[in-house]
Amino acid sequence: MKFTIQRDYFLNQLNDTLKAISPRTTLPILTGIKIDATDKGIILTGSDSEISIEITIPENIDGEKIVDIEEKGSVVLPGRFFVDIVKKLPAKTVNLSTNDQFKTLITSGHSEFNVSGLDPDQYPLLPQVSEDDAIKLPIKVLKNIIAQTNFAVSTSETRPVLTGVNWLIQNNELICTATDSHRLALRKLKLEDAQIEDKNVIIPGKALSELNKIVSDSEEDINIFFASNQVLFKVGQINFISRLLEGNYPDTSRLFPENYETKLTIDNSEFYHAIDRASLLAREGGNNVIKLATDVDKLELSSTSPEIGTVKEDVTTEDVEGESLKISFNSKYMMDALKAIDNDEVQVEFFGTMRPFILKPKNDESVVQLILPIRTY
Amino acid sequence: MKFTIQRDYFLNQLNDTLKAISPRTTLPILTGIKIDATDKGIILTGSDSEISIEITIPENIDGEKIVDIEEKGSVVLPGRFFVDIVKKLPAKTVNLSTNDQFKTLITSGHSEFNVSGLDPDQYPLLPQVSEDDAIKLPIKVLKNIIAQTNFAVSTSETRPVLTGVNWLIQNNELICTATDSHRLALRKLKLEDAQIEDKNVIIPGKALSELNKIVSDSEEDINIFFASNQVLFKVGQINFISRLLEGNYPDTSRLFPENYETKLTIDNSEFYHAIDRASLLAREGGNNVIKLATDVDKLELSSTSPEIGTVKEDVTTEDVEGESLKISFNSKYMMDALKAIDNDEVQVEFFGTMRPFILKPKNDESVVQLILPIRTY
Repeated sequence: MKFTIQRDYFLNQLNDTLKAISPRTTLPILTGIKIDATDKGIILTGSDSEISIEITIPENIDGEKIVDIEEKGSVVLPGRFFVDIVKKLPAKTVNLSTNDQFKTLITSGHSEFNVSGLDPDQYPLLPQVSEDDAIKLPIKVLKNIIAQTNFAVSTSETRPVLTGVNWLIQNNELICTATDSHRLALRKLKLEDAQIEDKNVIIPGKALSELNKIVSDSEEDINIFFASNQVLFKVGQINFISRLLEGNYPDTSRLFPENYETKLTIDNSEFYHAIDRASLLAREGGNNVIKLATDVDKLELSSTSPEIGTVKEDVTTEDVEGESLKISFNSKYMMDALKAIDNDEVQVEFFGTMRPFILKPKNDESVVQLILPIRTY
Repeated sequence: MKFTIQRDYFLNQLNDTLKAISPRTTLPILTGIKIDATDKGIILTGSDSEISIEITIPENIDGEKIVDIEEKGSVVLPGRFFVDIVKKLPAKTVNLSTNDQFKTLITSGHSEFNVSGLDPDQYPLLPQVSEDDAIKLPIKVLKNIIAQTNFAVSTSETRPVLTGVNWLIQNNELICTATDSHRLALRKLKLEDAQIEDKNVIIPGKALSELNKIVSDSEEDINIFFASNQVLFKVGQINFISRLLEGNYPDTSRLFPENYETKLTIDNSEFYHAIDRASLLAREGGNNVIKLATDVDKLELSSTSPEIGTVKEDVTTEDVEGESLKISFNSKYMMDALKAIDNDEVQVEFFGTMRPFILKPKNDESVVQLILPIRTY
């Protein structure tokens, strides 16, 4: 293998590939990045066996020569370490050449590294995902869906299915659900593509959050392909593959109560910042509990830490419908939910002190956040 | 105590005061910030008993009202926590009022905190440093001195005096020395003030690095006052007091060799980056060792890690005087020394493979960096 490549461009793609690599892998070769010099250009592969990223660097981009391949071939180089080298090399281009024992000579300017590579035949094969049956979403929408649901997945391995987000495709509608059993985030989206088979899969939360970091906000579309136990996200030159979680996701549709007892419409940012301040004391108290009491045209938030003191926040509200209410909740869950509602006005519906309450954007049913209260009153 | 203050300005001063406070203090009251409302304005005090910071907020700055004191008095409020509150408060001003039991009501907009304060009479008195006998330095120069010496102090408590920087004032010259016994940093400065008593003190490295963070780069001067076991740095509204280290600093003047065997003049940045790259492998090898070999018009840096590979860097040099040389050194010490020399050209003088070598800016004797080689050849 032998090629010369633009250093800056190479470095960006290497950094993205690195995001799939975990230093704590059981398979040592997976700490490396696989580099293939092929007819199609340079293909970089990184994987932690749960997530795999494959990036193709074409020989030319917009008429500019990016890579000049003299000899095809493959090698696996130590990931983190190789990326550090490329980052610090002095010249605009980098030359790589590999011998039969996978010793790789990396040169740039007056700098010369000789790095022991590994045999690419030892690198696990990436799962093949058929590219039939796809859904296509604008990247913006995908990133939005991730932001609105992913934070609510469980961080505990007690019920592994809850560490993922349930993607349910039914009658050309995508319904994404995440819950850690204390709160639940739901996002619905009508799919515009004509005919899509119904599906019910669970995508690991960790994979979605890595995907979110790699894919940059743009007007482009992302194509999503499902296999029996894998999902492939394809955007531009990047293939992002994640395994799916096994098991059945709980049916959460019956959790949503109807006929509220109390309903508020409130300014998102004002409510968020008032909770943020009250949570300073709730945090010191060690339990994150904030109390909320409704009044005619406002609500009062309060929290107490026996050692430090008390806080009281008044938040004005346009209208309080229904019965007056006192309820307690975890400040972090409430702040996460408010962040996930990208609307200036939030509607909060309560169903009594002991029952879950829901938050949604005003006049919009596509996002629903559900939170279990804490029993203190 | 009762006053109303501009929130942004208050927050900035609180953040600076906080820099003296350590969460791991043995005296619980020192986790707090002392607030005094006086005739002179608001005085904030933070201390970890080694370093103390006292900041005065005047009632008016440039004709703008900063603080309106309704009632004088004092209180100690929980430091980190109080600063977090002020940071998140909603309005442009903050009101503080304290009752007889030091309960403090903090209000801003619709936000209301009730915080348990502590009795200011329990707060330790700051050491008094007489303001006679001062030296005056431009802030720029002080920051420069700190940057050129402080990195070389010892981080080990085996010889406590080496955790500080020796400030020796002698015949109207300031000589600052720091060493961890593997390398030494020296900075000399002629003092312009007429008559200054000779002094020989050791200022803790930690204090100098905190001072460096608080004092912002400006054209202003800083006044430095010495007492028998304290030093006071005074700039604008800030008093920064540090205790001095006890003990005798070793005499390092005899360490500097004379009559070099080999001398190089080299481009600082090129040399620095070549070592930075070579250190990637030196680091993986676990010992940070880089080898240097001189040639007629260049030098070669190299390093080896048995597991990963080898690196070779060529650095051009204007002239190599004297004998040819092979020497090994710790890459980190070399990079620290080069950073401390703010000159594009560096002169390196070697006195043989086994003896310390020195680096200094070309044609400038005010900064000298000395490094012990590692014996490998």
